[in-house]
Amino acid sequence: MSFSLKDWSSERLARVEQALSAWVPADAPAGLGEAMRYAVLDGGKRLRPLLVLGAAEAVGGNPDAALRAACAVELIHAYSLVHDDMPCMDNDVLRRGKPTVHVAYGEATALLAGDALQALAFELLAPEGAGIPDRVQASLCRLLAQAAGQAGMAGGQAIDLAAVGRSLTEAELRHMHRLKTGALLQASVMMGAACGEATAAARAGLSEYGRALGLAFQVVDDILDVTADSATLGKTAGKDALHDKPTYVSLLGLQRARSYARDLLGEARGALATTGLADTRALLALAEMVVHRDN
Amino acid sequence: MSFSLKDWSSERLARVEQALSAWVPADAPAGLGEAMRYAVLDGGKRLRPLLVLGAAEAVGGNPDAALRAACAVELIHAYSLVHDDMPCMDNDVLRRGKPTVHVAYGEATALLAGDALQALAFELLAPEGAGIPDRVQASLCRLLAQAAGQAGMAGGQAIDLAAVGRSLTEAELRHMHRLKTGALLQASVMMGAACGEATAAARAGLSEYGRALGLAFQVVDDILDVTADSATLGKTAGKDALHDKPTYVSLLGLQRARSYARDLLGEARGALATTGLADTRALLALAEMVVHRDN
Repeated sequence: MSFSLKDWSSERLARVEQALSAWVPADAPAGLGEAMRYAVLDGGKRLRPLLVLGAAEAVGGNPDAALRAACAVELIHAYSLVHDDMPCMDNDVLRRGKPTVHVAYGEATALLAGDALQALAFELLAPEGAGIPDRVQASLCRLLAQAAGQAGMAGGQAIDLAAVGRSLTEAELRHMHRLKTGALLQASVMMGAACGEATAAARAGLSEYGRALGLAFQVVDDILDVTADSATLGKTAGKDALHDKPTYVSLLGLQRARSYARDLLGEARGALATTGLADTRALLALAEMVVHRDN
Repeated sequence: MSFSLKDWSSERLARVEQALSAWVPADAPAGLGEAMRYAVLDGGKRLRPLLVLGAAEAVGGNPDAALRAACAVELIHAYSLVHDDMPCMDNDVLRRGKPTVHVAYGEATALLAGDALQALAFELLAPEGAGIPDRVQASLCRLLAQAAGQAGMAGGQAIDLAAVGRSLTEAELRHMHRLKTGALLQASVMMGAACGEATAAARAGLSEYGRALGLAFQVVDDILDVTADSATLGKTAGKDALHDKPTYVSLLGLQRARSYARDLLGEARGALATTGLADTRALLALAEMVVHRDN
């Protein structure tokens, strides 16, 4: 029977949305909960949660742990967007087709909501009495913290910031993106794997899959920033060129960037084949979606 | 033999400073490491780390876990100061006698440095191969995440923000501070306890001690904001009144605020007596220091 990503995703997305809505508290003090929920709910493709769940299912992982991990990576992603959109960073007013959090709630609340979302991510990963083994909790916290911090997402954002108006080599650009977006995408896959007992070969293959997918994601992001319009993207198009940011398109040109994305899809596919896992169809379909998406 | 807090502290502070310097990476990308170190090193009273270590020693906890926990709470505290000082929050230019991080490194780097410090805190708590039991790692992550997030520090800051220019009842003010500063101070004590095997009575007593100490800390902070000068404080004095923020002094008057701080010290002392722990002299001395400090 053929695999339908749409069918596979829809049940999982529903679970993730429900869990996020339950776990991001409406009653956080003084409007903070409202801003946190605004930043997280009803928006985004939920690629990271789907990667967590896809990897967890592939290794037969604990489903409760996987759902928590799926929501936790999404909270980290959401907080990074809130802070990234702030006036002192990208100063963006549109995100997922809506006013950004600082436009809707003010800068101070946006700053705090981002901070609180990061803390909540780790809170989700270390629940008391939820039947998730301590070893899994510790592994999930480790993987997420490493991917979110200075050697991952935050470090990549710092490089990005310092790179505005400069020219980067392809190696420098790749390093920046590996940290800025790649680390969290790869961590999503590895957090899924950490929910079960994966062999060393499976973990190595999944790690390589996550690396290739993370890079492909950014290459395609750079392509879409040039080729798509704001309505389709749900965010401001063309802002890389506007901010004079180095991108794969500015570095390689549109055609070579496209072919690079296809090559990376091939690498992701090849890596999955080395895992020895019985069913990696969801992960393969997610990689294809990343490369072929139009927003 | 009498107990000297100075002697007890100096060896532990040296260990904490050394560990922070080793763990806050100088080589984080694009100036991020420099800003992170500037925010954390050579500054502050390190009250939270000392509370972690004092509680861990009282319960005979794992010293490596305790040192990590001590540094992790300090990183959360440091990140909160970086973000709190930013123009969209308190817009403060002086902290620990030095220009604040956003003044020294720019707003964007300050935002990212704060974000990266929060992630690093959790990374320290969940090390691979450091011999710290998974159960302890998971407990430490749980306690820190709860204290840092919307039901703790970040939530308290949101209430604080919303309270500017309003009048609060004493109950509302206490709730705000219990979250804003109290939660992390209490968590410091409980994280120390989580490094060992404390009885339920010991944990309950330590929790009550941490609650009273956390509240006393804030009452004394409010007193010092009125009575001390900026040079002694190492930060801008008088800013609560300037920003029309409700404080214990504005609510109770100076004299009743002072007597409230003494009452809370008595509660902290009484709570320690209920723990059944053999040696709580360091914790008692820390509570006395909190109430009797002049900066």
